[in-house]
Amino acid sequence: IIIKSKESVWELIKSLLDAWSGWVVMLLIGLLSGTLAGVIDLAVDWMTDLKEGVCLSAFWYSHEQCCWTSNETTFDDRDKCPQWQTWAELMTGHSEGGGAYVLNYLLYVMWALLFSFLAVSLVRVFAPYACGSGIPEIKTILSGFIIRGYLGKWTLLIKTVTLVLAVSSGLSLGKEGPLVHVACCCGNLFCSLFSKYSKNEGKRREVLSAAAAAGVSVAFGAPIGGVLFSLEEVSYYFPLKTLWRSFFAALVAAFTLRAINPFGNSRLVLFYVEYHTPWYMAELVPFILLGVFGGLWGAFFIRANIAWCRRRKSTQLGRYPVLEVIAVAGVTALLAFPNPYTRRSTSQLISELFNDCGALESSRLCDYVNSPNMSRPVDDIPDRPAGPGVYSALWQLALALVFKVVITIFTFGMKIPSGLFIPSMAVGAIAGRIVGIAVEQMAFHHHDWIIFRNWCRPGADCVTPGLYAMVGAAACLGGVTRMTVSLVVIMFELTGGLEYIVPLMAAAVTSKWVADAFGKEGIYESHIQLNGYPYLDVRDEFTHRTLAADVMRPRRSEPPLAVLTQDSTGVEEVEALIKGTDYNGFPVVVSRESERLIGFVQRRDLTLAVKTARQKQEGVVSSSVVYFTEDPPLLPADSPQPLKLRRILNLSPFTVTDHTPMETVVDIFRKLGLRQCLVTRSGRLLGIITKKDVLQHMAQMMNQDPEI
Amino acid sequence: IIIKSKESVWELIKSLLDAWSGWVVMLLIGLLSGTLAGVIDLAVDWMTDLKEGVCLSAFWYSHEQCCWTSNETTFDDRDKCPQWQTWAELMTGHSEGGGAYVLNYLLYVMWALLFSFLAVSLVRVFAPYACGSGIPEIKTILSGFIIRGYLGKWTLLIKTVTLVLAVSSGLSLGKEGPLVHVACCCGNLFCSLFSKYSKNEGKRREVLSAAAAAGVSVAFGAPIGGVLFSLEEVSYYFPLKTLWRSFFAALVAAFTLRAINPFGNSRLVLFYVEYHTPWYMAELVPFILLGVFGGLWGAFFIRANIAWCRRRKSTQLGRYPVLEVIAVAGVTALLAFPNPYTRRSTSQLISELFNDCGALESSRLCDYVNSPNMSRPVDDIPDRPAGPGVYSALWQLALALVFKVVITIFTFGMKIPSGLFIPSMAVGAIAGRIVGIAVEQMAFHHHDWIIFRNWCRPGADCVTPGLYAMVGAAACLGGVTRMTVSLVVIMFELTGGLEYIVPLMAAAVTSKWVADAFGKEGIYESHIQLNGYPYLDVRDEFTHRTLAADVMRPRRSEPPLAVLTQDSTGVEEVEALIKGTDYNGFPVVVSRESERLIGFVQRRDLTLAVKTARQKQEGVVSSSVVYFTEDPPLLPADSPQPLKLRRILNLSPFTVTDHTPMETVVDIFRKLGLRQCLVTRSGRLLGIITKKDVLQHMAQMMNQDPEI
Repeated sequence: IIIKSKESVWELIKSLLDAWSGWVVMLLIGLLSGTLAGVIDLAVDWMTDLKEGVCLSAFWYSHEQCCWTSNETTFDDRDKCPQWQTWAELMTGHSEGGGAYVLNYLLYVMWALLFSFLAVSLVRVFAPYACGSGIPEIKTILSGFIIRGYLGKWTLLIKTVTLVLAVSSGLSLGKEGPLVHVACCCGNLFCSLFSKYSKNEGKRREVLSAAAAAGVSVAFGAPIGGVLFSLEEVSYYFPLKTLWRSFFAALVAAFTLRAINPFGNSRLVLFYVEYHTPWYMAELVPFILLGVFGGLWGAFFIRANIAWCRRRKSTQLGRYPVLEVIAVAGVTALLAFPNPYTRRSTSQLISELFNDCGALESSRLCDYVNSPNMSRPVDDIPDRPAGPGVYSALWQLALALVFKVVITIFTFGMKIPSGLFIPSMAVGAIAGRIVGIAVEQMAFHHHDWIIFRNWCRPGADCVTPGLYAMVGAAACLGGVTRMTVSLVVIMFELTGGLEYIVPLMAAAVTSKWVADAFGKEGIYESHIQLNGYPYLDVRDEFTHRTLAADVMRPRRSEPPLAVLTQDSTGVEEVEALIKGTDYNGFPVVVSRESERLIGFVQRRDLTLAVKTARQKQEGVVSSSVVYFTEDPPLLPADSPQPLKLRRILNLSPFTVTDHTPMETVVDIFRKLGLRQCLVTRSGRLLGIITKKDVLQHMAQMMNQDPEI
Repeated sequence: IIIKSKESVWELIKSLLDAWSGWVVMLLIGLLSGTLAGVIDLAVDWMTDLKEGVCLSAFWYSHEQCCWTSNETTFDDRDKCPQWQTWAELMTGHSEGGGAYVLNYLLYVMWALLFSFLAVSLVRVFAPYACGSGIPEIKTILSGFIIRGYLGKWTLLIKTVTLVLAVSSGLSLGKEGPLVHVACCCGNLFCSLFSKYSKNEGKRREVLSAAAAAGVSVAFGAPIGGVLFSLEEVSYYFPLKTLWRSFFAALVAAFTLRAINPFGNSRLVLFYVEYHTPWYMAELVPFILLGVFGGLWGAFFIRANIAWCRRRKSTQLGRYPVLEVIAVAGVTALLAFPNPYTRRSTSQLISELFNDCGALESSRLCDYVNSPNMSRPVDDIPDRPAGPGVYSALWQLALALVFKVVITIFTFGMKIPSGLFIPSMAVGAIAGRIVGIAVEQMAFHHHDWIIFRNWCRPGADCVTPGLYAMVGAAACLGGVTRMTVSLVVIMFELTGGLEYIVPLMAAAVTSKWVADAFGKEGIYESHIQLNGYPYLDVRDEFTHRTLAADVMRPRRSEPPLAVLTQDSTGVEEVEALIKGTDYNGFPVVVSRESERLIGFVQRRDLTLAVKTARQKQEGVVSSSVVYFTEDPPLLPADSPQPLKLRRILNLSPFTVTDHTPMETVVDIFRKLGLRQCLVTRSGRLLGIITKKDVLQHMAQMMNQDPEI
């Protein structure tokens, strides 16, 4: 009795563990991806500053940490402290002057070249899959295609390391997209610990969907936005159970990251902003204009980037990836150093652009002319005329905008980990801030104009340029990725106020519509197409009136379908069929005359079964008959031993009739994730439709009638 | 040429309108449901106060509006002003004393009885579908079942009116669930304006999903939460296009409601709360306990309510719905009046419970003993000992809790519009506030205990009882509805701080797990089962190893399947078949011998075709042969005219083989929304599986093996 009860307790524990394994996997994913994101943030912070100088008190401190621990820093000059020395200061003792500038410039470029060289070399030597953002491939994997090793441990390790190097090198790329790939690698890693997930492809994909949510959650500190991103952008099939688990993983990841606290402010979010004034209806006009700009930028970027990537693929260029990365990194560093807005890291730039100018702000963007008798509270500063600092900043920002626009086209798609979120947001934030300051100054100087009269009296704080930067960033990101809901929610989580949803949404909608007018596909779909992955987009609607009979193979002019019969094919014939074709499987019919379908056999299973039988089963020779029926008939004694293969026969292959509209077939392929489907008419096998056939047909119909 | 170009312009406009009709419908839904929600809020406010008294300056003012416009109100006594008179004051001139109390009591009960009588009578006479919350039915409709008139104009009108009456009568019910029904009625109304939506059931369902999101959005002022509610709880199939449109509709609805501004504070949210202190790790223990309470309450409520509803259905009780409503309303009013926490409307109660005690709060729940030398800022008040007001309030809250728990069981399911969100939240908020105050006082009096020592020094503001109320509300709502992500997001949108997501999530998860241990189904699924709607839950996993052959009809002992042959059935036989059976359709086979399937014909089409032919087509008599083939053979001249019916034949019926695992069949039914599926073996028709068969089989397997 004791043994029995022990056993039953053990059974209970096992079943509990099994039931909870889903949650355990989510917890582990959240913890690991949060930790990795924290480590990446810290390392990037340190290495980015390393390009400019070093902390003498502890070389592993970044500039901010270095001066934070120093006692000699005043609030006004937060980033100047004796412990932090630029390279020129350290080597020559002079921190000012032409010589120091040149030396700093040189070392900045050197470090950038070193980091980028290391990054591309590591990727090339150890894990070629670690390059790019990874989101197009993850979309394809979640739609059912298998890319072996894409989510392996080696990819995880190398991608994490090279991501730090690539971002620190100052290239125009972000860490957000690759973080999704890193999180998915974590997901895959933990799946292999549980047989429930390692054996079932469908369940593994659910875990990967949740991991993608965790990735975005740590990238932006936006757990809800992460879940919606996974739902909207990445995942193919998103059951409800996954929703809850993704949310859990995203939250664990976000709070792990907060516990590590890489930004030193115990905030969950990357760009924390707090605006003090509401927005006004009239401001919707510039917001929508920013949306148009974002859409145009998105469409332009996708075309230019795809054209460049195609050229890389088809010409000599593709053979020298290391050289390409070094060249682009060199050019980026050379052009970026002179402009203070491009010299620093892109996320710092975005953070400054988003910020509202408070009374204590030391940024040049906040160099307004204060009226001497100002006695308002700190938060609610009225609009003021711009000072010379603002105007010089505007010029530099405009140059930075042009630079970012051009260099990002050449950067995305190189053989290093590279995300698009941050560069796109930077482009939008610069444009938005410029527009915002323009509107602000217009409102200040012309507050008697009709459009301003109602809401912008003198002395009021009516325009927030930081909000324009945020709207611009959302518009540009939307134009490139065609995200909508998740984009708005991510931005909403950054600000934490429902108040600003409408401007963000207006910009996101406009940007999507404008960009869609130039081409339906976002950057991820475009790269999927460029690489020729078999991806059936859930969003394309197929509305043509073709039938399954028009798409199925064999076509009229082609030889008949390669089939097996249930009880009259010899081993030799089967071997010839395997050799002579490269189909993934073969339908099995009753007889060649009746052509009535009884099942489908996978090529892999068939090859293995025949090979094993030849080696191990006595009496199976070339003339042996292969039986797929339940009970092979008793054979005469002198005939060779039959080969029974019913166990490898799939008795429930998916069939449609030849009259089925392709609209329905496409729907079935999508929702059931099929790879092939047999076509019958009143029980007779007519042909087969594979996923590739469906994709080809859809592309063909699209080209015929681009209007729809 | 001019005509042509005019035509093409017209075509362009038409195609544009068509392309934009989806957005137009969403806009209209948002506008109408936002407006209706605003009107309902205003009317409920006024009528709830009408039970207690009337505004002399303008009888259509609610108590708050009345005293708001008065100049004689001080800030401390906001709700006392000469314009507002209780009924006793108005009739007898005395506002105090026993007589006045009795008179007010009497009139309170009278008004409650009147409102509830009007509500139930209107529902009974004009729109029986207007009763209940409507969410179970909408779930069923979105899964593909059609309930005619359930979303009609008449239902919309009556539900809106009776909802106001039911809520004002003081019954223990909320307006949130019915608002979803109202929004869906709006959606259905606008669908009928556009042929694209009125003709296509699938597209109409997409609009309804979006309308449900708009409904929750206005109910809670939570657009993102609304979309997630629709996704998680209501919708069956939620394509991505719908996500974006739902979000749009939800936003429009929320902002329409804000423009109407029924709460007079221009806030989007129902319960606006702002907490000033963070939460501490140790507080997770009471939060999780509240989760356990919520789960237990949810499980208990569902069982008790379903048992009571079953009794109503099976006994005499069900025959007197008007009497039942009046009796429950009378009991509710009689018991509610003496307790100030149940006398007012439930949403006011929740709002007070959620609130943090500021320095200016006049509620008895904030009657703390202030230390005389307090000079802290208004926001950050340290923990203080509770005063007598708090203790008396706690007693009354405990009584209110018991009352709400009991009366809600009898209220939900009566023949009036009734939502569950508000009563559930009230139960949780009361329990949460009690726990919160207990923890607060414990921390104040025993701040040297180990658990408090680290985070709760004397003079610190460490426990926020309002947060406990919110966590409790989330837990109870989660226990009843089994919402998870959407619940957390709705609550998050109420507070607007990511900070409090973890407590809310801990409570929601615990509550769901505890409640699930007592029964997998939430209140909506339970009511769907109670009413016997054919609903195939997307969340149930079917893991049994049965095959299609085990489920299909006919069973072994039953007569063979009723089929038609393609070219040998007479009109008479067809008519006999229609008369003799009540199947929804019939498979068509090549011949009775071969049983090879060629298609499926709907009963409705067949009946109509035969009837029309009999009346209008000459020469079709009883002995005419019905042909489903493409070209009927030439018949001898003396034989009767054949009846050709190929045009009503569905040539692509859905088939599976008899060896298909039921797991796959269930999956296909769910994802493709099938109503029936034919079963074949090597092209021969064996049987049919309908949705009902699948549901029966699933229930049967569930009962056999309740462990899984």
